[in-house]
Amino acid sequence: MEPIQLKTWAECAPRLVAVAAGRAPADTVIRNGRWVNVHTREILPDHDIAIAEGRIAYVGPDADHCIGPETEIIEADDRYMIPGLCDAHMHIESGMLTPAEFARAVIPHGTTSMFTDPHEIANVLGLEGVRMMHDEALMQPVNIFTQMPSCAPSAPGLETTGFEIGPDDVSEAMQWPGIIGLGEMMNFPGVVNGSQQMLAEIAATQAAGKTVGGHYASPDLGPAFHAYAAGGPADDHEGTCEADAIARVRQGMRSMMRLGSAWYDVESQITAVTEKGLDPRNFILCTDDCHSGTLVNDGHMNRVVRHAIACGCDPVIALQMATINTASHFGLERELGSIAPGRRADIILTSDIETLPIEHVIARGRTVAKDGEILVDCPHYAWPEHARNTVRLGHELGADDFAIPAPEGASEVTVNVIGVVENQAPTKALTANLQVEDGLIQGDIETDIAQIALVERHRATGDVTNAFVSGFGYTGRMAMASTVAHDSHHMIVVGTSREDMALAANRLGEVGGGVTVFREGKEIALVELPISGLMSDAPAADVAAKAQALVEAMEACGCTLNNAYMQHSLLALVVIPELRISDLGLVDVTRFELTDLVTGTK
Amino acid sequence: MEPIQLKTWAECAPRLVAVAAGRAPADTVIRNGRWVNVHTREILPDHDIAIAEGRIAYVGPDADHCIGPETEIIEADDRYMIPGLCDAHMHIESGMLTPAEFARAVIPHGTTSMFTDPHEIANVLGLEGVRMMHDEALMQPVNIFTQMPSCAPSAPGLETTGFEIGPDDVSEAMQWPGIIGLGEMMNFPGVVNGSQQMLAEIAATQAAGKTVGGHYASPDLGPAFHAYAAGGPADDHEGTCEADAIARVRQGMRSMMRLGSAWYDVESQITAVTEKGLDPRNFILCTDDCHSGTLVNDGHMNRVVRHAIACGCDPVIALQMATINTASHFGLERELGSIAPGRRADIILTSDIETLPIEHVIARGRTVAKDGEILVDCPHYAWPEHARNTVRLGHELGADDFAIPAPEGASEVTVNVIGVVENQAPTKALTANLQVEDGLIQGDIETDIAQIALVERHRATGDVTNAFVSGFGYTGRMAMASTVAHDSHHMIVVGTSREDMALAANRLGEVGGGVTVFREGKEIALVELPISGLMSDAPAADVAAKAQALVEAMEACGCTLNNAYMQHSLLALVVIPELRISDLGLVDVTRFELTDLVTGTK
Repeated sequence: MEPIQLKTWAECAPRLVAVAAGRAPADTVIRNGRWVNVHTREILPDHDIAIAEGRIAYVGPDADHCIGPETEIIEADDRYMIPGLCDAHMHIESGMLTPAEFARAVIPHGTTSMFTDPHEIANVLGLEGVRMMHDEALMQPVNIFTQMPSCAPSAPGLETTGFEIGPDDVSEAMQWPGIIGLGEMMNFPGVVNGSQQMLAEIAATQAAGKTVGGHYASPDLGPAFHAYAAGGPADDHEGTCEADAIARVRQGMRSMMRLGSAWYDVESQITAVTEKGLDPRNFILCTDDCHSGTLVNDGHMNRVVRHAIACGCDPVIALQMATINTASHFGLERELGSIAPGRRADIILTSDIETLPIEHVIARGRTVAKDGEILVDCPHYAWPEHARNTVRLGHELGADDFAIPAPEGASEVTVNVIGVVENQAPTKALTANLQVEDGLIQGDIETDIAQIALVERHRATGDVTNAFVSGFGYTGRMAMASTVAHDSHHMIVVGTSREDMALAANRLGEVGGGVTVFREGKEIALVELPISGLMSDAPAADVAAKAQALVEAMEACGCTLNNAYMQHSLLALVVIPELRISDLGLVDVTRFELTDLVTGTK
Repeated sequence: MEPIQLKTWAECAPRLVAVAAGRAPADTVIRNGRWVNVHTREILPDHDIAIAEGRIAYVGPDADHCIGPETEIIEADDRYMIPGLCDAHMHIESGMLTPAEFARAVIPHGTTSMFTDPHEIANVLGLEGVRMMHDEALMQPVNIFTQMPSCAPSAPGLETTGFEIGPDDVSEAMQWPGIIGLGEMMNFPGVVNGSQQMLAEIAATQAAGKTVGGHYASPDLGPAFHAYAAGGPADDHEGTCEADAIARVRQGMRSMMRLGSAWYDVESQITAVTEKGLDPRNFILCTDDCHSGTLVNDGHMNRVVRHAIACGCDPVIALQMATINTASHFGLERELGSIAPGRRADIILTSDIETLPIEHVIARGRTVAKDGEILVDCPHYAWPEHARNTVRLGHELGADDFAIPAPEGASEVTVNVIGVVENQAPTKALTANLQVEDGLIQGDIETDIAQIALVERHRATGDVTNAFVSGFGYTGRMAMASTVAHDSHHMIVVGTSREDMALAANRLGEVGGGVTVFREGKEIALVELPISGLMSDAPAADVAAKAQALVEAMEACGCTLNNAYMQHSLLALVVIPELRISDLGLVDVTRFELTDLVTGTK
């Protein structure tokens, strides 16, 4: 499959000029709409747009001179003509979809440009995986730019990823056609402490003239924050309150405010503009992470813009935050993000500027969706076998692999337990006293203590790290396994039954990855994610339906938490406090070091 | 001379991070100022700035942790700390000064970044001349970026320049370190008509990822204007009224509003922001052309910003228009144009945000001026002999070279006469009946008709084109000659005496170019411009004094027009209506063709 070739402005200029001057006919003319001008912040009624070669040739009061016998006419009928929406920072893998299927899901919502960090696949397949995502992205009928992942592993020394990313990889990727910058620099302690490797990745990106993505996930706005800003990241989406947003913009960074499936950081930050009256140009909207269910049921960037407007933001300013502000940030303001000559003809027609129904979506001059229906093909990359076969367990697992031997002679032990917190990414470091039977430490359904295992799946070592977790509320014999296991994406298995844990793990080995739930020895839900164990190349609606079945299966096993699959998949994320599991053991993320499972015996 | 090496942000990052974190001392700390934040549009009292390696390491409420025993402390004493001012489009040659002397003149006014189009020297010395300007620019202690001239000759076929610029030159120049984009694309009819050469120059600039300067000098905002915008220019400084400014910004161009020595286009356009309330981000201030007298007596960008504020613009918005808006336009928003980490430490201290006294100027971390006094060296390029010896007349001129023979047997003729208009660039196409004596057509002091001659000076052809001009009001025997003769920069001689015309022309040949006035056979004023016949490497004050003496000499010869030297030097500018002179003859600039001098005889 070849990437779709969009001619550059320079290549089209002779024709664009001729069309605007009335010497050549346009391919398409949109007639009689309200031009939402994100350069001036105006809404201008009675305007026409002429399009040629997928780019805008003319926007003005009358495009009659651009119309020839073959010109397609689209009647805007006084509707608003807004630029296609941009998602400034996001991870496609979060939708459990390939770039093609993600695109297919969001195009009807009016998203025509995405800035994506394929950070998850980088941990599984390294630079080659990033390249595959990048290549499929370039095949799509909309603009998917790739941010080169910066931090794999996310916590060097505390976990082993499938692959690692270093400054040389970053330098190499900067030469690829679809790379727009460096993905979120999550290792903020590294930057603050002057890590040579992190600063070298930033330097390679700056040398290429590209944008360095930031990720400063700390409420500390003192010298550490200033040091991070001095290191070079140009944006940040980790702010959660007004003071965070303001501090970032004052320091010359752009504040990316996110509304993802589980992120709600717009309402708390947009007051910097709506109430404090700051210049809005450096505020940008994004999603960061969207599950397929959100895409199918709620929308994508249209959902975020609507939400910003509902938070009191002027609609045209909210649109600027999802169009020209984003384009400017990535050095693309003359390429996309507005309806103006030379730009890619990415245009939405909508009859209401506040509720934003996405009625007609044009991308690169083509009608790609109408009234929620996609009308264009989103080609699939030919994923090679080794990208579909990434779950390498080394041997068939048995219940013994999940046995946790007690110290010799102990009848009861005190253990560290990972405590899941509803709706939050951080965990609690708990302790519990557990019984020993047959020399093995036992979980305890009564006090909601299940087993958790990290199954190595990249190098077929056969290693299993065992520990305990509390908070899911599982009852009866069950197990749930997932190869989505941020950020190293080994396999996380949680269960009350060692037999079911083995069955679930083996099942994911068999299908090449995904998420499964077993109850009393039988599989009751399965989401297959064959591409690197992270993504499906099935349509979003199918994946969303299976994900919904998964939630129901978890409930059937006694889980009462909201959105607990997210909690499950984050239990190995060794950069967020307090206690996590990795292939190297139990990790105390308050001190960034390994810690013991058993702390005492009786 | 080597260009001044400023380390990149990436090269400085380890130190900047260490300073911000408090692990290393800053070179300089500015204490207790009001931070004018052009990102958020705020003024924040009680802030400190720490500087290292010429860049900003920290801006925050307290830089005590950045201070070591060697750290220089500058007390802001509650003054405003504003970013160094940027001139977004200008021609250094207009000041009749070399880049070094121009920089020396404007640094005390707070200008720390200039975007300069060495368009004039390109006509005289071609690409090599551009390179010399570029190289001297890079030697300065402030930021002088070069826009590669796009249009030499300005009107192909109507004049012969010393050198021509084409797409290959543009491509080559785009690789030079100091080139920021393409200089104003003045050939707007060429772009509108799809000129391959003009579009190729634009394409070469876009391919290099740089900014295409525009120049659309027409009030027509119909399809021709739209076609120009579709051709690729990213800005325009030729707007003169509010509608011009708005139209450009709506089309995704930036509106550059200029206040030069003879341009007054801010007041009439800034109402787009101050009254119409448009988003100010795409409005930029510039000077375009400043004479040395303006620089010495009135200021530079500080004059423009003050004027914008006096026109009712919010002071911080006016400052944005001369700092971050400019930087963003040229893709430099993370390099300069604001006081934020990583940026070049270009900072002005001022005690009043409206009258803008420029009290302390810091460029790249160094104090370069205080209270109007420059404190830094502005190194001169070693201009080679052939750049100082560009006035090649072929032979010593005599009165005969300025004789205008009448058609045989005529005693009176009707001729086309260039009519000078006070304070305006356009001329009027006049006609007059003139007497013939000894077979030669005679000027007429009584009706204010003097002779004008275009003396070829690039190729030593010895050619002189003769014609008539009206409007200066010269009386008695005199002549004035100038090698500043836009855009081809041959030599323009105006006089009432053929003998004095020859003396004046020969004198400029002798001194290597400049401007001279002769009266009754004696020189009464001279501005030497030895560098390419356009610039002096003497200080601005000296040049301004000589230019003032020149004005007085013109008055002494009977001239009553304001600023008539500008009129003189523009008489060969064959792109502005109505009638001009070139080395090829008299040019009708309403029809873009050569026309006859004599139209009738008696």
